[in-house]
Amino acid sequence: MADDPLVLGGRTYTSRLIMGTGGAPSLDVLERALVASGTELTTVAMRRVDPSVQGSVLSVLRKLGVEVLPNTAGCFTAGEAVLTARLAREALGTDLVKLEVVADERTLLPDPVELLDAAETLVDDGFTVLPYTNDDPVLARKLEDVGCAAVMPLGSPIGSGLGIRNPHNFELIVERAGVPVILDAGAGTASDAALAMELGCAGVMLASAVTRAQEPVLMASAMRSAVEAGRLARRAGRIPRRHFAHASSPAEGRAELDPERPAF
Amino acid sequence: MADDPLVLGGRTYTSRLIMGTGGAPSLDVLERALVASGTELTTVAMRRVDPSVQGSVLSVLRKLGVEVLPNTAGCFTAGEAVLTARLAREALGTDLVKLEVVADERTLLPDPVELLDAAETLVDDGFTVLPYTNDDPVLARKLEDVGCAAVMPLGSPIGSGLGIRNPHNFELIVERAGVPVILDAGAGTASDAALAMELGCAGVMLASAVTRAQEPVLMASAMRSAVEAGRLARRAGRIPRRHFAHASSPAEGRAELDPERPAF
Amino acid sequence: MADDPLVLGGRTYTSRLIMGTGGAPSLDVLERALVASGTELTTVAMRRVDPSVQGSVLSVLRKLGVEVLPNTAGCFTAGEAVLTARLAREALGTDLVKLEVVADERTLLPDPVELLDAAETLVDDGFTVLPYTNDDPVLARKLEDVGCAAVMPLGSPIGSGLGIRNPHNFELIVERAGVPVILDAGAGTASDAALAMELGCAGVMLASAVTRAQEPVLMASAMRSAVEAGRLARRAGRIPRRHFAHASSPAEGRAELDPERPAF
Amino acid sequence: MADDPLVLGGRTYTSRLIMGTGGAPSLDVLERALVASGTELTTVAMRRVDPSVQGSVLSVLRKLGVEVLPNTAGCFTAGEAVLTARLAREALGTDLVKLEVVADERTLLPDPVELLDAAETLVDDGFTVLPYTNDDPVLARKLEDVGCAAVMPLGSPIGSGLGIRNPHNFELIVERAGVPVILDAGAGTASDAALAMELGCAGVMLASAVTRAQEPVLMASAMRSAVEAGRLARRAGRIPRRHFAHASSPAEGRAELDPERPAF
Repeated sequence: MADDPLVLGGRTYTSRLIMGTGGAPSLDVLERALVASGTELTTVAMRRVDPSVQGSVLSVLRKLGVEVLPNTAGCFTAGEAVLTARLAREALGTDLVKLEVVADERTLLPDPVELLDAAETLVDDGFTVLPYTNDDPVLARKLEDVGCAAVMPLGSPIGSGLGIRNPHNFELIVERAGVPVILDAGAGTASDAALAMELGCAGVMLASAVTRAQEPVLMASAMRSAVEAGRLARRAGRIPRRHFAHASSPAEGRAELDPERPAF
Repeated sequence: MADDPLVLGGRTYTSRLIMGTGGAPSLDVLERALVASGTELTTVAMRRVDPSVQGSVLSVLRKLGVEVLPNTAGCFTAGEAVLTARLAREALGTDLVKLEVVADERTLLPDPVELLDAAETLVDDGFTVLPYTNDDPVLARKLEDVGCAAVMPLGSPIGSGLGIRNPHNFELIVERAGVPVILDAGAGTASDAALAMELGCAGVMLASAVTRAQEPVLMASAMRSAVEAGRLARRAGRIPRRHFAHASSPAEGRAELDPERPAF
Repeated sequence: MADDPLVLGGRTYTSRLIMGTGGAPSLDVLERALVASGTELTTVAMRRVDPSVQGSVLSVLRKLGVEVLPNTAGCFTAGEAVLTARLAREALGTDLVKLEVVADERTLLPDPVELLDAAETLVDDGFTVLPYTNDDPVLARKLEDVGCAAVMPLGSPIGSGLGIRNPHNFELIVERAGVPVILDAGAGTASDAALAMELGCAGVMLASAVTRAQEPVLMASAMRSAVEAGRLARRAGRIPRRHFAHASSPAEGRAELDPERPAF
Repeated sequence: MADDPLVLGGRTYTSRLIMGTGGAPSLDVLERALVASGTELTTVAMRRVDPSVQGSVLSVLRKLGVEVLPNTAGCFTAGEAVLTARLAREALGTDLVKLEVVADERTLLPDPVELLDAAETLVDDGFTVLPYTNDDPVLARKLEDVGCAAVMPLGSPIGSGLGIRNPHNFELIVERAGVPVILDAGAGTASDAALAMELGCAGVMLASAVTRAQEPVLMASAMRSAVEAGRLARRAGRIPRRHFAHASSPAEGRAELDPERPAF
C-alpha cells in the first residue's frame, strides 16, 4: 500500500509480494498471474535464462513494468554465485541480486558457509544483496552484519508447500533484524503468506505456490490479498490469546459507551 | 465477490465476513470498522439491545445498510433461546437468527443438547437458523438434519483468539455438509480467517478480533482481505505438501513451453 | 505405580494403560502385547465375541488375570448400547461398561445425544459407566453429571493415529472434571500417550496403535513406558515455556550452593 | 537397553539419556536426579567448574560412576572453545567434548561458522566431538563431514522448554545422517523426549527440564521412561496416520484368526 511501502536497498515498493517465475505452465498464464499478484519485483534464475532471446520471461516482465530481481539459483558454491551475480548485473543492468547458494539438489537448502562468503563478497562489490537463507537467527544476523539489504529465511524447503515450520525462529529473527525480513520458500497457500506478515515479515517471496496451483491466476490474487491482510493485521495489533472465553459483549464493556445508549 | 456469493437460507451476500458488534470501544469506531470490513450481515445480541432506542448499534447498521442478524447470546436453555429468537423476529422483522445456547459463562461453549433442541423448534417455527456449535462433525450433521441453514462451528472459545484448534474437525464437517459451514469464534488474526476459508468454510464470523484489536478499523480491513484471500486460495487449488524440496524451475518443466523460448 | 493408582468406580489399578484387543494379527501376539503393556484392564467388543467359546480373547484375558471391560462397539443408538451392556453384565458378571454409541461407520465418532441418553440409563441401572465421548468439555461435564465414573474423550478418530488434535479441549475437560479423564482413541505412538498424561489425563486407552504396529509387542512396551513417563512428568511439574534461552548453568544459580564448592 | 545400545565414538551406553548438571537446586537433588535418570554420561561446563576442588559436581559423578562429558558452554569463538576443550582433556583425561560455541548470551544459539571451525580443529586434534548445533540439515551434514562423532541439534533454545519446534528438520537430519543424532536443548517435558526418539534421534540431552522442574527427581524418572518409550516406539514401527476412522476390530480382521475362535 502506498502509505506503507516496502523499502529494499533504497528502492521503494508498494507491493510486498515478490514473485518467482519458475513452474508456470505457460508464459501467458505467468503473465496473467503476475498481473493478478500485483507484484513489482520478480525474480528470474540467471542460469536458466538467456537475456538476449525474444519472447522470454524477461520480455513479459518488461512489458508489465515489473522490476527484475536476478537470482543465483543452481549455484552450489560462493564462487559460482558471485560469478552468476556479476553476469546478471552486466546483462540486466541491476545491482539487485537474490543470492542463492544451495547445498544439494534434493533439499535445495542454503549452504550457510558458502552463502555468507558470497554475501560478503557481493556487498563489497556494490551489490544490493537479498540472501535466501535458512531460518537460523544467528546466520540472519551475520548476513545483516556483512551488509545485506534484507534477509530472506525459508519457511520450509523450496516447493514443499509446508508453510512456516518454525514461527518461533521468525519471531527471533524479526525481533533482532535491522533490515527487512522476507519469507522466501515454503508458502503453500494464502494463510501461510498472511502468517509470515503477522510474524513481522516485511514481504513474502513465492513461486510454486502460485505457478503450480491448479488455478495460478486465482492463487496469485489470493496471495496478493493475503500479504495485504497479514500486513494490516500486524499493524492493527491483534488481541492477546486467552485460555478461556471472553465474551464479545460483556456487561463491563458498557461503561465506555454513552449511558443513554444500550450496551451491545 | 459478486461472482462467488455466499447464500444463506435463500439470501445472497457478496461479502463472506459476518461481523459482531460486541467489544467496540465506541459506536464511531464500530461504524468505521464495519465499513472497512465490507460486511453485509452483522450480529447483535438481543438480550443486550433495546431496538426502540435511538443512537444504538442498530441505528448504525441501518445507516450503513448492513443486515441485522439477531443472536441469542446469554441464553442457557433452549427455552430462553427460542423466546429470545421470537422476540427478535417481532422486533426486527427478520426470520434470521444466530442461535447461541451456551453451557456456562466461563467458557461460553455451546450446550449441544439444548442447542439441537432449540434449533429444531425454531426451524419448525419458520426461522432461518444459523447455530453456533462446537466443532463436532456429528452435531454439525444433526443440526443440518433438523433444517438449519448453515452450521457455525467454533475454532476455539469465544474471545480466546486461539484460532482453529482442530482443523481436522473442520475438514470432516465440510466434507459432509450440505449447508454452508461458517467459522464462528476463535479467529484472532488474519491468517486464522484465511485458514478457515482454505479448509472450506463458506464464511467467517468474528467480533472481538476486530473490535478489541489495538486498531479495530485496520483489523477490519485485514479480515476483509483475509477472507477473500482464503476463499480465492480454496478455489485456486493449492499445491500438495511435499516432504522434500521441489525446484520452482526444474529442467523438466521446460517441455511445456515453446522450445523457441528459454526455460525459466 | 503402586503409590499412585488409578481409581475407577471404586476399583484400583496400578497400570494406567487400558488396552483394546481389536486388530491383533493373532491371539499369540495379542497375549504377548498385553503382557508387555502391563495392562490390568482390557476392553472387548461384546458384539463381536461369544463368551461361551473356548480359545477366545476372553480366555487370554482370564489366563493373564486381566480384568475385562466389555464395550458396546457397533451400537448406533442408546437402545442398542443399553441392551448390549446388559447382556455383557449377564455374560461376564461385571458392572463395568465402556459405553460406545457411534454416529456412523465411517468416522466412528460418538453420537452425543444417544451417548448421554444411554449413559443416564446405564448409571440408573447400576453400571459403572466409562463413556467414549468427543472432546467437548460441555458434554464431558454432562456425562459426569449423570453419574459416569470417568470420561473418555477421543484425541482424534478411532484408528487414525492422529494423536490429540486439540490439547486445549483436554485442558478444559481436565480442569473441570471431578472424575478421571482417560484418552480414548487417536494415540498413534508413545509421545501421544505421554502428552495425554501430561495434560492431566488419568489414563490412556488404545488398541490399534499397539495391535496394528509393525511390532505390536515392542509398541506395547513403548506405550507402557510412555504412560508412566507422562504421569511422572505431570506430577513433577514441568518448567515453564520461555520465549528466550535460559542457561542451564547461569552464574546466579551459584548462590544456592555451598560457596566452598564451585558452581556447576 | 542392553540389546540396543547407543554408540558414540566407539563407546557404548545402555542409557540414551545424556544429562546436564546446570540449574539443580542442590548437589543432593542433583545426585538423586542423576540416579533416577539412569544416565551414564553427563555434561559439565568446564568454564564453571574447578576439577581440583572436593565436593563438586565432579565428585558426584565419580561417586555415581557416570562418565563426564566436558562441554565448552560460555565460549563465543572457535578459539575459546578449542582452548577450553584442551584444558578439559588435560584436567579430566577424556577426549570426549560437547562442543558449544554460541553467538550471544541472550539466545545461546550456536554460531554456525565458529562451530564448524572449532569442530574441524578438535577432530584433527583427536577429540571425539559432539557438537551442539542448530537444526539445519546442511550444517549437520558439514559437521559429520569434518568428522564429528554425532550431531546434537537443538529442538528450541536452551532452557526454553519449547520442545522440538521443527520436527521436519529433525526428519531431514536423521534421514541423511551417518552418525547418531541427539536432541540437545529444548525438551521441556516427557513427550518432547519421546518425540525426539520417534523422529529417529539416537539419544536426548537435557538439563533444565529436570533440574528446574518442581520435582527434579520425579522428572528425571519421567525422562528416563520417555526416552525408552520413544526408542521402543521408533523400533516398533507406528501405525500410519489416517484422515478417517479405522475400527480396531473390523470384520475383515477376522480372517487372520482361527475360524474356530470368535473374532474380537
